[in-house]
Amino acid sequence: MLSFQCDYAEGCHQEILDLMARTNREGIIGYGCDEYSARAKKKIAAACGYRDDESQPEIFFLVGGTQTNQVVISTMLDSYQGVIAADTGHIGVHEAGAVEYTGHKVLTIPHKNGKLDAADVKSLLKKFYGDGSYEHMVFPGMVYISHPSEYGTLYTLEELTALSKVCREYDIPLFLDGARLGYGLMAEGTDVTLADIARLTDVFYIGGTKMGALFGEAVVFAPGKAPKHFYTMTKQHGAMLAKGWLLGLQFDALFTDDLYMKAGRNAIEKAGRLRKMLAAKGYNFFMENPTNQIFVVVENGKLKELEKNVCVSFWEAVDDSHTVVRFATGWATTDKMLDELDTYL
Amino acid sequence: MLSFQCDYAEGCHQEILDLMARTNREGIIGYGCDEYSARAKKKIAAACGYRDDESQPEIFFLVGGTQTNQVVISTMLDSYQGVIAADTGHIGVHEAGAVEYTGHKVLTIPHKNGKLDAADVKSLLKKFYGDGSYEHMVFPGMVYISHPSEYGTLYTLEELTALSKVCREYDIPLFLDGARLGYGLMAEGTDVTLADIARLTDVFYIGGTKMGALFGEAVVFAPGKAPKHFYTMTKQHGAMLAKGWLLGLQFDALFTDDLYMKAGRNAIEKAGRLRKMLAAKGYNFFMENPTNQIFVVVENGKLKELEKNVCVSFWEAVDDSHTVVRFATGWATTDKMLDELDTYL
Amino acid sequence: MLSFQCDYAEGCHQEILDLMARTNREGIIGYGCDEYSARAKKKIAAACGYRDDESQPEIFFLVGGTQTNQVVISTMLDSYQGVIAADTGHIGVHEAGAVEYTGHKVLTIPHKNGKLDAADVKSLLKKFYGDGSYEHMVFPGMVYISHPSEYGTLYTLEELTALSKVCREYDIPLFLDGARLGYGLMAEGTDVTLADIARLTDVFYIGGTKMGALFGEAVVFAPGKAPKHFYTMTKQHGAMLAKGWLLGLQFDALFTDDLYMKAGRNAIEKAGRLRKMLAAKGYNFFMENPTNQIFVVVENGKLKELEKNVCVSFWEAVDDSHTVVRFATGWATTDKMLDELDTYL
Amino acid sequence: MLSFQCDYAEGCHQEILDLMARTNREGIIGYGCDEYSARAKKKIAAACGYRDDESQPEIFFLVGGTQTNQVVISTMLDSYQGVIAADTGHIGVHEAGAVEYTGHKVLTIPHKNGKLDAADVKSLLKKFYGDGSYEHMVFPGMVYISHPSEYGTLYTLEELTALSKVCREYDIPLFLDGARLGYGLMAEGTDVTLADIARLTDVFYIGGTKMGALFGEAVVFAPGKAPKHFYTMTKQHGAMLAKGWLLGLQFDALFTDDLYMKAGRNAIEKAGRLRKMLAAKGYNFFMENPTNQIFVVVENGKLKELEKNVCVSFWEAVDDSHTVVRFATGWATTDKMLDELDTYL
Repeated sequence: MLSFQCDYAEGCHQEILDLMARTNREGIIGYGCDEYSARAKKKIAAACGYRDDESQPEIFFLVGGTQTNQVVISTMLDSYQGVIAADTGHIGVHEAGAVEYTGHKVLTIPHKNGKLDAADVKSLLKKFYGDGSYEHMVFPGMVYISHPSEYGTLYTLEELTALSKVCREYDIPLFLDGARLGYGLMAEGTDVTLADIARLTDVFYIGGTKMGALFGEAVVFAPGKAPKHFYTMTKQHGAMLAKGWLLGLQFDALFTDDLYMKAGRNAIEKAGRLRKMLAAKGYNFFMENPTNQIFVVVENGKLKELEKNVCVSFWEAVDDSHTVVRFATGWATTDKMLDELDTYL
Repeated sequence: MLSFQCDYAEGCHQEILDLMARTNREGIIGYGCDEYSARAKKKIAAACGYRDDESQPEIFFLVGGTQTNQVVISTMLDSYQGVIAADTGHIGVHEAGAVEYTGHKVLTIPHKNGKLDAADVKSLLKKFYGDGSYEHMVFPGMVYISHPSEYGTLYTLEELTALSKVCREYDIPLFLDGARLGYGLMAEGTDVTLADIARLTDVFYIGGTKMGALFGEAVVFAPGKAPKHFYTMTKQHGAMLAKGWLLGLQFDALFTDDLYMKAGRNAIEKAGRLRKMLAAKGYNFFMENPTNQIFVVVENGKLKELEKNVCVSFWEAVDDSHTVVRFATGWATTDKMLDELDTYL
Repeated sequence: MLSFQCDYAEGCHQEILDLMARTNREGIIGYGCDEYSARAKKKIAAACGYRDDESQPEIFFLVGGTQTNQVVISTMLDSYQGVIAADTGHIGVHEAGAVEYTGHKVLTIPHKNGKLDAADVKSLLKKFYGDGSYEHMVFPGMVYISHPSEYGTLYTLEELTALSKVCREYDIPLFLDGARLGYGLMAEGTDVTLADIARLTDVFYIGGTKMGALFGEAVVFAPGKAPKHFYTMTKQHGAMLAKGWLLGLQFDALFTDDLYMKAGRNAIEKAGRLRKMLAAKGYNFFMENPTNQIFVVVENGKLKELEKNVCVSFWEAVDDSHTVVRFATGWATTDKMLDELDTYL
Repeated sequence: MLSFQCDYAEGCHQEILDLMARTNREGIIGYGCDEYSARAKKKIAAACGYRDDESQPEIFFLVGGTQTNQVVISTMLDSYQGVIAADTGHIGVHEAGAVEYTGHKVLTIPHKNGKLDAADVKSLLKKFYGDGSYEHMVFPGMVYISHPSEYGTLYTLEELTALSKVCREYDIPLFLDGARLGYGLMAEGTDVTLADIARLTDVFYIGGTKMGALFGEAVVFAPGKAPKHFYTMTKQHGAMLAKGWLLGLQFDALFTDDLYMKAGRNAIEKAGRLRKMLAAKGYNFFMENPTNQIFVVVENGKLKELEKNVCVSFWEAVDDSHTVVRFATGWATTDKMLDELDTYL
């Protein structure tokens, strides 16, 4: 069946498969201490705008998104701290309490188009330290954002800079979840680059799973920001991959010949065409965004009809007769798929 | 200085001091396995309306409120579950993340006068199980309420019954935090009795610390509801008192000759007089309630003046020039204290 | 450089690569809810001796060994329980405290040839319940063994049966870590089959990572033994793979045409030849075992020489001039590799 | 019945009861921010040998011993670290896994007369850092000792100095559990003073519960060694006492007119007389020590007889017909009690 359910329903780029086949019997050292991982890290650092002659970021590869959020947040927070997130943030809603499992609270702020507003963050921090009994409360110890957000929306450079400024003023790290980062970087009209993100955050990750890797997320700590013995703590979380080079070579491929950005661009172009198709058929958009996720309100009868031929994602019920569903394009979406979809809309 | 800051600023009832002096050199077995504890449990069970010939509740004594909330919630929840609470609930705001420290999320619902509405709880549960991806989310596994609430408000019997019904429909326990239970039970107009609470909840606690014990909370599990090896888990939490009989004899005293209820009644009467005094002086009430906590809006200049002679509790800022403060009466409040206060208002 | 360092230095069986290439652009549902995973589970259940007309085991796929140990142990134990293991057990030594991270103690017993002795386990359990203050101690709540053990040794059917009997007598689960299970099942002289393990344990896992999968471990719970909502808890641990079918299709391949057993047999045959080569050159064996790990004592000067051409694993220092090292063969070891190694020994 | 079961079977010193009665209705600020607590801290600092003109220790009061061990250890360790202890250490055996509950491993070393040997600690640390795969293991991050030990034995100044030296060499804190500290300081022949302990450790606690307080332990962090926001973390652990002044005034009393040391001396004198009584009746000592706990081997028939009139503590079974039991004297033991005991021995 035709699937627009998500951007991780296919395996991986052919380049990755080829690289895995080519290196399959090489005999490589485990746990990410290999040459492929080292090479991938160099390429990522360069793509983030680090020059060879300056302090380098520390980069680690992990397997999945929830795992990465859990490991990064729990290792960067002190025991008495929680993490600030939008109330729609993935860590607070769809990760089965992975952050709380490690002992930390998610401190929520109402979202604005899926995003955290710097002024709201500042106001929370100010109110916290203004409360006489704050020592009986969870300290806000980190800010978590995703880019694109859960609603596919993007921060502007101004918004991201404002968030960064608040975090630095209060000396707490800014963490950007980039599970779909490539789709954000390639969106039309965005003024945020990978180098901006590297410069304005303390830690972020470059999502692989949703961008055409079999699996894998690249965590980039700004120079000096990685927690001591992060490596051991990934082991302690059960998050260390024995054949760690599999992560390295996937990111090596993704950051060779601009593959990562091309993957992003494809999804954006296909989403553009799909939006036009949907508009032409009279669908109503639930929340507009410039990335690869398209949220539309569908009448339930129509939806039932549609789902005979196409997989989409349930998002939420609007009322008894209407539902918000998500169409997602991705690195693997083709025009042929869109042609077929058009016949069912 | 005159203090209306809280209901735990004095030591304890004279009866408790006397009992402690009388038994001081007895040589008693530790960890709560003593006769005083056994006797106190019997008296509490009887006060809760249990007849001798029926299944008895399991009762445990712990030292403090946050500790009790932490131990009860973490031992009753499964690993994949969180606890539903009002967004003003003590566990989510003023306990430094003690619940999250044990690995569980607090799932919040906007409060109504400091209380959880049964319809809102039902709606959360319905929505949760209606979401196709609920297995990626924290399961709602318990409902936490406090009676009186953080705002001193009380559930009616109808409201409590409705909450109990929803919990039983979804087979999750209802936990009532009774840190100030006596002030609730003795409030004018309440139709909720201790026996109602014992019957409608799965577990609740009878607060001692705020009701004239030096310390101590009595946790009452409905028959068959106590977690297996709860005793060992209190040890594991560092919550087991070596000289456990000190808890037993305090509750023995509190449940002898109606001392607990008398303590509650005193606070209610004194609060009644204080409300009249405040109204007479033109103070505005922030949120009305029938118990021992009185929330008033004070102009900041006036507040500064007042605080030269009286301790009150900062609650929250209203605007740049007004503040909500709390006056609390308690088991130890006297008319003499009120007379003096009247001169400063 | 020639590597005998471990059994996970190569990628995977050609059959797996082929299957991944063939299905790469299919569009498959995520999180392990796919057809490949379902098919693999059926094949594993059959290999474990389950007939179609009886209660089936519940099978889950996870990514790595430490992760699997952490998730299985923490979800099967109650909060007040710990897990019994040999003092050499992987969970207690080389997993960075992953079990303790989830709140549970590893209760150690001195190993016998890397194994747990049923009589020692029984004696620990008897002593525990005989201690008047056992309610102040961690309850033994599970037995963890590995087969092959850390030293490559194997349980006999009699030993495994005895362990199973003790566990059932005390009503605690027996968990078998089968990270290298195939090398154990194919060892010469073993009388333990996969069906025996399925029958005698409550949960075990069939290691993929060390047996020629890119990654992946198949957890097999005996019928009725899987913890409630295990799926959600894998998510909570950050252990759920988005493209879960990658695990399913690897195990599908491993359990097609006996690939898993062939992989085991190859390592055993190669280890047999290697043992003879080492003996012929006068090496001393540190601890004998019938599986794919060979521990030899090497003089440090000789070792330095050897390591110019061959990677082996440091195991432990014997004295100032001798070291125990491990040679590991695996599914990917070839005679050509052994021919070359022979020239360096 | 006559009890020599433990040193916490009586309430408290008369001086403490009097102070509690005198201050009972004062109206005191909560959570340990009161004058009594401040005064007690000053007295303790002075008793530890701190001059007014030098950096002061940070002192906190907690309620019980297991709680104190849990809070101190978990807040001083980094996530990737465990605590080294003797295999007989209280934290590893009789605290229901309270340390593991916070995510940390107890790394055990075989005891020598209930004590940790500095050479053994150094050897563990050396071996750890010498292991090529130590980053896959729990880092030794603290040393825990108790003085007196579980067997009532004492460190000499030389032994304590050696432990301190190893810890400083490896930059990990030395933590001394002083639940029975007064009995150690007052033992005959000891050359270790309170000032030595303050100087040689990074944190230790002065036990109150077993020395004649109703409850309470005073944690003393060397200057600059207290974890950031320790106060909030005690709240997070459920370990903060609302009426915190009750701890302060008990330690105020204990450190006034040498009460703490007198309490210790009484127990030591009574233990001396008891040892002579036991020897005269032909009892065999299991392990000799100079403090208030006396371990003797008793024939089971004789024990049964004895227990008709006297409570003692079961320690361990020697064989089928003999048992090790403990007699404990304490701050409350009188000659009259010993006279009576003598008739039963």
